Amino acid sequence: MHTLPRPVLQALVGDEAVEAFFSNEAELAAMLRVESALAEAEAKVGLIAGDAGRRIVEVCGAFQADWGKLAEGLARDGVIVPDFVRQLRAAVGEPHAKAVHLGATSQDIIDTALVLRLKSVVEILGHRLDTLIHSLDGLKRRDGAVRLMAHTRMQRALPFTASDKIDTWLQPLERHRQALQDLALRLLVVQLGGPIGTRGELKQHGDAVAGQMAETLGLGLAPSWHSQRDRIGEFGAFLSLLTGTLGKLGQDVALMAQNEVGEVKLAAGGGSSAMAHKSNPVPAEVLVALARFNAGMLGTLHQALVHEGERSGAAWTLEWMVLPPMVVSAAAALSRAQGLIAGITFAPSKAVET
Amino acid sequence: MHTLPRPVLQALVGDEAVEAFFSNEAELAAMLRVESALAEAEAKVGLIAGDAGRRIVEVCGAFQADWGKLAEGLARDGVIVPDFVRQLRAAVGEPHAKAVHLGATSQDIIDTALVLRLKSVVEILGHRLDTLIHSLDGLKRRDGAVRLMAHTRMQRALPFTASDKIDTWLQPLERHRQALQDLALRLLVVQLGGPIGTRGELKQHGDAVAGQMAETLGLGLAPSWHSQRDRIGEFGAFLSLLTGTLGKLGQDVALMAQNEVGEVKLAAGGGSSAMAHKSNPVPAEVLVALARFNAGMLGTLHQALVHEGERSGAAWTLEWMVLPPMVVSAAAALSRAQGLIAGITFAPSKAVET
Amino acid sequence: MHTLPRPVLQALVGDEAVEAFFSNEAELAAMLRVESALAEAEAKVGLIAGDAGRRIVEVCGAFQADWGKLAEGLARDGVIVPDFVRQLRAAVGEPHAKAVHLGATSQDIIDTALVLRLKSVVEILGHRLDTLIHSLDGLKRRDGAVRLMAHTRMQRALPFTASDKIDTWLQPLERHRQALQDLALRLLVVQLGGPIGTRGELKQHGDAVAGQMAETLGLGLAPSWHSQRDRIGEFGAFLSLLTGTLGKLGQDVALMAQNEVGEVKLAAGGGSSAMAHKSNPVPAEVLVALARFNAGMLGTLHQALVHEGERSGAAWTLEWMVLPPMVVSAAAALSRAQGLIAGITFAPSKAVET
Amino acid sequence: MHTLPRPVLQALVGDEAVEAFFSNEAELAAMLRVESALAEAEAKVGLIAGDAGRRIVEVCGAFQADWGKLAEGLARDGVIVPDFVRQLRAAVGEPHAKAVHLGATSQDIIDTALVLRLKSVVEILGHRLDTLIHSLDGLKRRDGAVRLMAHTRMQRALPFTASDKIDTWLQPLERHRQALQDLALRLLVVQLGGPIGTRGELKQHGDAVAGQMAETLGLGLAPSWHSQRDRIGEFGAFLSLLTGTLGKLGQDVALMAQNEVGEVKLAAGGGSSAMAHKSNPVPAEVLVALARFNAGMLGTLHQALVHEGERSGAAWTLEWMVLPPMVVSAAAALSRAQGLIAGITFAPSKAVET
Repeated sequence: MHTLPRPVLQALVGDEAVEAFFSNEAELAAMLRVESALAEAEAKVGLIAGDAGRRIVEVCGAFQADWGKLAEGLARDGVIVPDFVRQLRAAVGEPHAKAVHLGATSQDIIDTALVLRLKSVVEILGHRLDTLIHSLDGLKRRDGAVRLMAHTRMQRALPFTASDKIDTWLQPLERHRQALQDLALRLLVVQLGGPIGTRGELKQHGDAVAGQMAETLGLGLAPSWHSQRDRIGEFGAFLSLLTGTLGKLGQDVALMAQNEVGEVKLAAGGGSSAMAHKSNPVPAEVLVALARFNAGMLGTLHQALVHEGERSGAAWTLEWMVLPPMVVSAAAALSRAQGLIAGITFAPSKAVET
Repeated sequence: MHTLPRPVLQALVGDEAVEAFFSNEAELAAMLRVESALAEAEAKVGLIAGDAGRRIVEVCGAFQADWGKLAEGLARDGVIVPDFVRQLRAAVGEPHAKAVHLGATSQDIIDTALVLRLKSVVEILGHRLDTLIHSLDGLKRRDGAVRLMAHTRMQRALPFTASDKIDTWLQPLERHRQALQDLALRLLVVQLGGPIGTRGELKQHGDAVAGQMAETLGLGLAPSWHSQRDRIGEFGAFLSLLTGTLGKLGQDVALMAQNEVGEVKLAAGGGSSAMAHKSNPVPAEVLVALARFNAGMLGTLHQALVHEGERSGAAWTLEWMVLPPMVVSAAAALSRAQGLIAGITFAPSKAVET
Repeated sequence: MHTLPRPVLQALVGDEAVEAFFSNEAELAAMLRVESALAEAEAKVGLIAGDAGRRIVEVCGAFQADWGKLAEGLARDGVIVPDFVRQLRAAVGEPHAKAVHLGATSQDIIDTALVLRLKSVVEILGHRLDTLIHSLDGLKRRDGAVRLMAHTRMQRALPFTASDKIDTWLQPLERHRQALQDLALRLLVVQLGGPIGTRGELKQHGDAVAGQMAETLGLGLAPSWHSQRDRIGEFGAFLSLLTGTLGKLGQDVALMAQNEVGEVKLAAGGGSSAMAHKSNPVPAEVLVALARFNAGMLGTLHQALVHEGERSGAAWTLEWMVLPPMVVSAAAALSRAQGLIAGITFAPSKAVET
Repeated sequence: MHTLPRPVLQALVGDEAVEAFFSNEAELAAMLRVESALAEAEAKVGLIAGDAGRRIVEVCGAFQADWGKLAEGLARDGVIVPDFVRQLRAAVGEPHAKAVHLGATSQDIIDTALVLRLKSVVEILGHRLDTLIHSLDGLKRRDGAVRLMAHTRMQRALPFTASDKIDTWLQPLERHRQALQDLALRLLVVQLGGPIGTRGELKQHGDAVAGQMAETLGLGLAPSWHSQRDRIGEFGAFLSLLTGTLGKLGQDVALMAQNEVGEVKLAAGGGSSAMAHKSNPVPAEVLVALARFNAGMLGTLHQALVHEGERSGAAWTLEWMVLPPMVVSAAAALSRAQGLIAGITFAPSKAVET
């Protein structure tokens, strides 16, 4: 018996490559990169000793967490960082323990560690978008001349071509590709504010430390944005727009692949436990499900824009519950769409031929 | 007895100036501008006679609709345009009747008429954003030095200043201002595709007609986007991000205005029917309500991205139900925030003084 | 030129009979009934003089509001009641003015006035459900034997009958009918709590006054539920379940009415402005739009369950924005479904015949 | 280094006991119980041989799945059952292999296996509700007389007691307790319909087989409900109502625990990585986050009511993504509320004392 390390449903709606960025291990690794970059920057500007900086960087590179304690700490403190810092300080040991996390707050670490991983996610999404656009271009070249029947309000309208159809899928994807590039500049910025977001504990060195961290981590620079969650909300909207476009593609394919319509043939349809003759348009249906899921999740994510005070435990926790499944769903949608397009053939509409 | 032409609740959560763009009359006026611009463009490229074009433009300028018939037509056809065109053709009369709406489809008229009005809405939102940003800058100059207590997780954290607080409201607003300007270029484009979105009925003149219409109407140019609703979804996301930012501002003010906290004084609080001593932070609460409303509506609007085929009656109808209240809510939020900021005074935190 | 008193879109997605309960006039009339019943009850238990009670009842029966002032009051106070009570007291005049609204709070009036109107709405919905169930039963008797093709995952599965199909629509409707009857007992209860929900201002007479009011108004009795919004949330869930079931019916009809499938014929399809041959399944599409609208609105309504303190301006306002459109959408869905079923004919599946 | 078998975030917002019902293993075990009960019932009515029934029951009791193949099958077929049945048939071997799953369809297995686990979940939720109600009763007895300040619209209103406050939390919980009991009768019913929901493949034995299965599995009996998802939607609404009520409790506690208000003391507050003096109301904030999460998820779940045809891959998949996190969130909310109430002490309002 093989066991599975993740919910089997993810084989249908998930994306292993992108899920990996939201594993416990990936989050911890990103947090360590952030603490390391912070220490390095603070050493550079002289807030902590060079020895302290080097020691922290070294320990961050090899740190092993006590996950049970981290989980307990998270349940108690509402955020994993206090116990994480306690463990990290213990690992760094004296005399440098108190140089760890100096002047920073939980949110600096968590948010920057999120952004670091979103940077990789953005690259993956961008690459997949390129590939999908390329595949649709190829499909257009191959099948573009096939005569189809356009449908408005679920009724036959007038004849057009597969090329016309594909264009309605391609054009928004091209806009999403551009939008992703534009929003990356706003989204992928370091978070550093200290306890109340003013960089006050870093004295006059706050901006220099943030700048140095950004450089080390390959991120952009911005003032502290602890309670300003519009970047997260904007990224969520992008994810939902993308899955929405792919959901429309999926719905179109499911409609065209109906036995009665037959304008699309799928290389491999899903089987049924009861009806051997069935060939189900599974990836097309999954695209619709992912679109509806992300649309609903977006409405929930935007509830977290009402982030009261200098840090809202309620709103921030809500983000943690909502954003990762949205990211995974968008990545999965691109992957399912790619598989769908790779196995699709357009067939002339019988209505047009007669 | 004075009667009211609109639901009295709109006095609290609505915005008269922006609601006006979604009145029956405003929609009809915009549709007439679109049919007029279409006829003018078609005459210019020779698709219809110059006389026909002039006659249609003239009639569009003075057309009086039979609203009862329009409503009946809408209920029957799912869209108001077929009966509107019937009435308009009757008003134009022979021999030019059939030159009306030539080569266009319902969605060309409805979508372009929406965009025309959104253009004005975008200007109003932009102007209000400028004003609000200006007011917050002024408030910062006046009260910025007041010593407040920062709160994280609804507990006292550390002292900071009103200026620090205001910055957390201002910075996302400045990003929204820029975002509005950027998205306007994408959103404010003409819709012209004909029955199935290919401009096929306009023969080789499709692009020229679209270009001419765009120029006449002061809109940008784009290929037909009948079933590509990402522009609408992107605008909805902007509206929700904006109301979300203002909801955060409102929640902050409501918390700071608590009797026990007293870091904010409101010029005029709302009264109670039962407790004469109450001074309620009504606009602050309304901002929270509007933020949560638009967040939820955004999740619903994005369901309409799954716009099947060349025109989805279901998805398009859903947009009609959702987008206008979102626009009005965003406009109302800007207006309430402006009123709130105009009447606010920061008071030193008692916790900081002791 | 005929003008329309309401947004023309309501001809498609609205319901005039049920919208009427949410007009300014209907709300005012219901509020007057509540103040009248309150005064009557208070006179009966001796909290106010019999003369005062009679005078208030009399004035409530003929009161004309200054709507402009009411709107101003609502915008200022966040609730219409303070100015309404001011106007009502002025109309009652001395010496009985202060007997008006005695011991009550805004929420008592607004919530009870809502419940009063929901009582009528519940009756209408129940009646329409009965009628629709009856029509589906009739359709089953007439067309039940027609051989159709069942479809799973949008692919042909196996033959079955129209009777089997209709059962999948009927059975949940029968459950909804029962659910409506059950929830009416919980929902249709008087709200009376006074300023902070304890009935404290009514001294030892609180329960007696509430009981008397409930009797006069034909409502059930319950402790004050100012900040307990589960009844509203439960009713919202009912509305969304109902529109969801009808949305499934609509989606099924739209799929079966596809030209390529042809298992359903519609008496009257919607026309197109560009394609004379089209016969669009408009009411079916509208049912889908209404289902998706109410589903999204339900998610938003339930955000208002987080009703902080003894009265939340933010959460309560959100309810006001969300519940009425949900009620109207559910009523409209029943009406559209009724029209759809009345004009439907099942046609034998070509796939089954061959 | 200890590793964690689940996302560490679940330590904050999850519930290990209830999550367990949604593990791969638990789902498989439930599916095996269903196939076993089906075979037993079919042997009883004579649809399969007694030997076949015994062999299938025996194999189901010891079956080891190849999870890699199940995951591949799920990704291909959109549902895990076809490959599961293939593996199960192989394990049963000849001559009884084809007696496995006879006359059933994927949805019969998946839905019944879900309901089986929901039965246990309902018991757990009911037990926790009882415990929480008991604790709140106890708190009322102990602290009920403490004088607090009621707050309306986030402003001080009038004095009342802790008992009054606790009542506003208790009363809806008591309604939820009753509602859970009522809905269990509707929800916890067997699903058996065969390929298209008509029980047609079971010939005249369909109802007998369903009845026998229900008895074996301890479930209620109902006609096939493949495409009627109102039961699921109703349960989702219950979950959101429950988390909403607990979210209100959490929001109240967070407000009362503000340093400036101090009407509630928490036994153990969460710590901060940067501010040693902080004592954060973590479980209270988590309750708010869970309420907003489930509200949004409910809006998404109800989108799946539009379940087209005899089985919708898209709508069904959406349910799979949405319902389990909702169940876990509701269970977690009960558990967090229990912990919060256990450690709470009411303190007299300073405003009332003066």
